Amino acid sequence: MEESNRKEERIRGEVLFKGRMLRLERDAVRLPNGLETSREVIRHPGAVAIIALQDQQVLMVRQYRYAIAQETLEIPAGKLDPNETPEACAQRELREETGYRGTLEHISTFYTTPGFTDEVMHLFSARDLVWDPLAPDDDEFIGVEKIPWDEAVQKAQRSEFNDAKTILGILLVQGRIG
Amino acid sequence: MEESNRKEERIRGEVLFKGRMLRLERDAVRLPNGLETSREVIRHPGAVAIIALQDQQVLMVRQYRYAIAQETLEIPAGKLDPNETPEACAQRELREETGYRGTLEHISTFYTTPGFTDEVMHLFSARDLVWDPLAPDDDEFIGVEKIPWDEAVQKAQRSEFNDAKTILGILLVQGRIG
Repeated sequence: MEESNRKEERIRGEVLFKGRMLRLERDAVRLPNGLETSREVIRHPGAVAIIALQDQQVLMVRQYRYAIAQETLEIPAGKLDPNETPEACAQRELREETGYRGTLEHISTFYTTPGFTDEVMHLFSARDLVWDPLAPDDDEFIGVEKIPWDEAVQKAQRSEFNDAKTILGILLVQGRIG
Repeated sequence: MEESNRKEERIRGEVLFKGRMLRLERDAVRLPNGLETSREVIRHPGAVAIIALQDQQVLMVRQYRYAIAQETLEIPAGKLDPNETPEACAQRELREETGYRGTLEHISTFYTTPGFTDEVMHLFSARDLVWDPLAPDDDEFIGVEKIPWDEAVQKAQRSEFNDAKTILGILLVQGRIG
C-alpha cells in the first residue's frame, strides 16, 4: 500500500492548552476511508539525551520525576531551548546536570512515542569529559552517579532501569563499542 | 541524598483537558527547597508493545502517525483498555494489528518519557504464532510486514528505525537470544 493511501488529512485544528513545556492540540482529520475523526497531539520542542563515558563508567543522574511520583536513575537529558541545536542542547544539559562537557558524537534520533506526541529525541555519546559546570535549572535537584559501563549494560539488559531512553541509549552504544 | 530530599509535594491540581486518550493535569508542587512551581503531566492509561517472532522473522506494522505526519514501521503496540491486563492487551493488539496470537513472555516494563507523562509500557515477546485475527480499530489502517530478524537487529543498531520502543524492543530481545 502506498503512503498516500494511509495519510490522514488535517481538516481543522485547535490549541487546547499551551503550557510551560507542552502544547496540546486537537485536530479534526479525514481518514483514508473518507470518515472524519479527531487526533489529540502533544507538540513538544524536542529533546536530547547523552551517554557520557569516562574511565569505563557512565554518568547517570538521579532525580525525582513528578509525573511518575518516584526517583529515577537516567542518563542526562533535557529539552531543546528555542533555536537551540541538538548539539548545543546536549552540551548544555550535560554541563548543567553533571558539570562536565565532552566531545559529542551523534548516535541516533528517534521519536519517543509517535502515537501521541511529535517529541523527537537526539541521542549523543560524550567522551573526553572536562569539568566545566553550568548552574542547573532552579527547579531541578539532581544527583550524579558514576556507574561502571559493564554494570550499566547488564542492568539495561535485565530491565533494572525503568526509563526507555536510558535502556535504549546504553544498548545502542554498547552495540557500537561492545 | 535520600529520596525524601528530592520529593516534590503536590499542593493542588487541576485537570486542564480530558480527551479520548490523554488527560492533561497541572499541579502546583512544593520543591525540595521550599519554593512552589507547577508541573504539567499527561496521564496515560499505559501501553504494550510486542516483538512477535516467526521463522526468524519479526512482524512489524506500517501505519500513518498523525502526530509526526509520516508513516512509520514499528513493532505492534497499543494502549490498555480500562481494567485490561498488560498480557490481555498484548494479545488483543497483536491479533488486531497482525492477525496472530502467540505465546507471550514479558520482557520489560519501562516509562516512555517520565519527564512529562506517566505512560508505562509493557514489552512482550510472542512466539508460536497462530492465525486468529480480530478486527482492528476502525480508525487504524495498518499494513503488516515480516522482516528477517537479523535485518531488524542491524536496522535497530544503525538507527534505521525512528521509533524508540521498536529500537529498544529489538535490542533487548536480541540480547536474550543473540
